[in-house]
Amino acid sequence: VREAVLAAALDLLGETGALPKVIDVAKRAGVQKSSIYRRWGSIEGLVLDAALNRMQHEIPIPDTGSWREDLAELVREGIAFHRSPFGAMMARLIVQAPESLRRAYWKARFGQSATIIARAQERGEISSAVDAPLVIEMLVAPLYLRSLVTGEPLDDDFAERLVDLVTRAVSK
Amino acid sequence: VREAVLAAALDLLGETGALPKVIDVAKRAGVQKSSIYRRWGSIEGLVLDAALNRMQHEIPIPDTGSWREDLAELVREGIAFHRSPFGAMMARLIVQAPESLRRAYWKARFGQSATIIARAQERGEISSAVDAPLVIEMLVAPLYLRSLVTGEPLDDDFAERLVDLVTRAVSK
Repeated sequence: VREAVLAAALDLLGETGALPKVIDVAKRAGVQKSSIYRRWGSIEGLVLDAALNRMQHEIPIPDTGSWREDLAELVREGIAFHRSPFGAMMARLIVQAPESLRRAYWKARFGQSATIIARAQERGEISSAVDAPLVIEMLVAPLYLRSLVTGEPLDDDFAERLVDLVTRAVSK
Repeated sequence: VREAVLAAALDLLGETGALPKVIDVAKRAGVQKSSIYRRWGSIEGLVLDAALNRMQHEIPIPDTGSWREDLAELVREGIAFHRSPFGAMMARLIVQAPESLRRAYWKARFGQSATIIARAQERGEISSAVDAPLVIEMLVAPLYLRSLVTGEPLDDDFAERLVDLVTRAVSK
């Protein structure tokens, strides 16, 4: 039942690009509205749970053989996410969520990404002193800043400037 | 009248650390509640206007003579801001604001900060090719990410790691 409700929520979200109504999720999943409220409390809680569940299984970590290209790909994926209706909505929902969910969201989205740096360190391409989690955070944080706060454009030019600055710090 | 209302809103915010009530702002400023609603629409709109107005006049740009120290000071100021009840509230309010206000907020808080880099470039300390606005954005974005999204600690250790990575990119 849980899987059916989560899938219905994400399907409806994907179809309309907007937060679905609990009644529509219930119909699609073949459950009672009341059991959704009992388990998830609100449509926001349900959508966050659904998104976390999918992210834990489906977020690909780039592995092109080049750490520079891996980081560039990570930024391109992040920009595509923030530009999508789903990603823009998720970023806004997560700000309103309790801290435990916010931490889980971050871990699900980026917990594995530091392996890009770890692999390059194992291959001897970059110094073992490089602060891998911070590098990932530095690449991702400006996407959230632009998406949530400043509204500045998230485009290819910005991706290039960002990756250029961060790889410069790492390769020194 | 405008100045009195803005000052009353920020005073009350500073005293309680919470979004004030329109009625309390009206009493403190000696105006009618209705004129506040007419002009600002809501308490959120009023507080944002008050904060922008103060920031435009009061945000100091560090000028220690050392660009590394200036950037470190900028990050320390930013961390103090996000850890304060006022700053934490502002960050959350701004996410809900219309894009025009969000851009104005960003400009008021950081529009001048790129002069830190420009001064160092004039002194010949760092390359004229350095992307000054991006450097500021890279130092500030992780503070918003931690404050709004991940809930990870904003402490001295983090400030040091952040400044270290960014100055490494710039000084190359």
